[in-house]
Amino acid sequence: MSDTIMSYEEVVDLAARCLKANGANDENALAVARTIARAERDGSASHGFFRLPGYVASLKSGKVNGRARPKVVRHAGSVVRIDADNGFAPLALEAGIPDLVATARESGIAAGALVNMYHFAALWPEAEKIAEAGLVGFTCTAFKPSVAPAGATAPLFGTNPMAFAWPRHNARPMVFDMATAAMARGEIMIAARDGHELPPGVGLDKNGQPTTDPSAVLEGVMLPFGGYKGSNLAMMIELLVAALIGEQFSFEAAETDNNDGGPPRGGEFLLAIDPAHMGADDSDAHAEAFFARYNAMDGTRMPGDRRYANRDAAENGINVPQSTIDKVNELMA
Amino acid sequence: MSDTIMSYEEVVDLAARCLKANGANDENALAVARTIARAERDGSASHGFFRLPGYVASLKSGKVNGRARPKVVRHAGSVVRIDADNGFAPLALEAGIPDLVATARESGIAAGALVNMYHFAALWPEAEKIAEAGLVGFTCTAFKPSVAPAGATAPLFGTNPMAFAWPRHNARPMVFDMATAAMARGEIMIAARDGHELPPGVGLDKNGQPTTDPSAVLEGVMLPFGGYKGSNLAMMIELLVAALIGEQFSFEAAETDNNDGGPPRGGEFLLAIDPAHMGADDSDAHAEAFFARYNAMDGTRMPGDRRYANRDAAENGINVPQSTIDKVNELMA
Repeated sequence: MSDTIMSYEEVVDLAARCLKANGANDENALAVARTIARAERDGSASHGFFRLPGYVASLKSGKVNGRARPKVVRHAGSVVRIDADNGFAPLALEAGIPDLVATARESGIAAGALVNMYHFAALWPEAEKIAEAGLVGFTCTAFKPSVAPAGATAPLFGTNPMAFAWPRHNARPMVFDMATAAMARGEIMIAARDGHELPPGVGLDKNGQPTTDPSAVLEGVMLPFGGYKGSNLAMMIELLVAALIGEQFSFEAAETDNNDGGPPRGGEFLLAIDPAHMGADDSDAHAEAFFARYNAMDGTRMPGDRRYANRDAAENGINVPQSTIDKVNELMA
Repeated sequence: MSDTIMSYEEVVDLAARCLKANGANDENALAVARTIARAERDGSASHGFFRLPGYVASLKSGKVNGRARPKVVRHAGSVVRIDADNGFAPLALEAGIPDLVATARESGIAAGALVNMYHFAALWPEAEKIAEAGLVGFTCTAFKPSVAPAGATAPLFGTNPMAFAWPRHNARPMVFDMATAAMARGEIMIAARDGHELPPGVGLDKNGQPTTDPSAVLEGVMLPFGGYKGSNLAMMIELLVAALIGEQFSFEAAETDNNDGGPPRGGEFLLAIDPAHMGADDSDAHAEAFFARYNAMDGTRMPGDRRYANRDAAENGINVPQSTIDKVNELMA
């Protein structure tokens, strides 16, 4: 079966029609569909159409509100609290990030607390959006337990990704987005689907033994990257997105989730920092001098460059396998 | 030679006398001496008396101002800028952290920018101080290049540590402090001094080849922990402590430093977040439920517990080798 070449807009339209056929209103469907289309455009297959069955399942089970109306409230000067109204994260982020950015421009820094939401996507879109407004962006979230703390053999942490974005005046932002798990769960799912072996150190099987079989890791437990240091970061993220902002830890999400195949309810923590208020003379030129040094070194690669290269290539269309289109059509039937 | 058992106050006094004999005034000497004594008390030999020759060298060379008078200025609502007046970091931190804490209590979050300073210590003391005030603390700093970006064989990053602290109402804060290098430079220096081998993955020799010889790594280049993910974090820290706040990148610090054996001039970035303003009902009890789960798992260890155990043991006195006391006396002669 050959791929279909679709434009970004066609991907948005296809995904949105599918979500609307399953109970989402226009606004919510389009926000999620744009998130899916951005992932397909940027070469992140594990966050594109691959996630649509989960989104649809959570609409059909009634767990997620497909007609959510996010509310944004500013607290205490520099905190922006975004209540997603039990909807998927994308619409709430579209609603809240402009306030987060405005608050940081006024106060120098702003913290964002996104709650009552269901996140099933990558984090780079929101970090990149903050950096496109000229600010430094940081964000993190949790999920359900699939990662063992360093030293343990049972899961407690989610794959707990974090993203960081640095704004550049004459280039697209430098953005990295990485799981604190040794490998993102989506990548392991793709490896299992495609029959690929994992590198060592990614996880343990259900008996707590190391394995490179992705299916065995999905039945067992994943490991944090970098041993106890990655484990510390995973713990930090749990505390920021649950205890700090009043949402569920990964272990609580597992206890309350209906396991419909979509994401559990959770929180997201965001930061926006305005370099114009931090006291530097010219943070942009200064950062560029650093990037020039970095890029001149043999063997380095700018974080996010592959994503931008995929995005540029997608100007000529996004390859979508016929099997994917068939699945989307099935979900609409 | 047997150890001498000293009280915390005796360690402070000995270190302060040495610093004063080399040009520091009371205030600056005591702030650095408390930092050294806290490290000795908490079992962090690599940040205790071990660093005193470097502090003294930077006073004697005139690079560091031993009579520094730090200035603290609030910007834009939620930014606290701390100018260390070319002194060592400890006095500037003592001056600035109360303002950082007050700002976060008012605004929900505050960013700290510590500049014109020389940092030669661990980061947990400042993170812990923020958490002892009931706030979430985060801090990071850079140094001189000793760590190669992922894929490269030449240094660009410092060991670039970060510390995170979570406040607990009925317990001491949960604090982790970790280098984004696979191992802290201080630990490698201790291993070299004591003739211990390193685990694999810590660094490359001067020819870019992997080695477990600490002296070869000190002549070669260290590696980030966890491959490209640790490398991303090291880059994030460079951007926060240099471009964002207007201080030197590690590569710039190397170019301007006089190599007297003490720390180079650099910046430190800090965050304080007040859980009371983030919208959670009871973040403390919620976090405790998480810690209880974590601690009930086989194989886990609470970050910072070893430090607190050492601190408790030091109530009965701190063991200081006679060779260390001899060195301190030499530095005073």
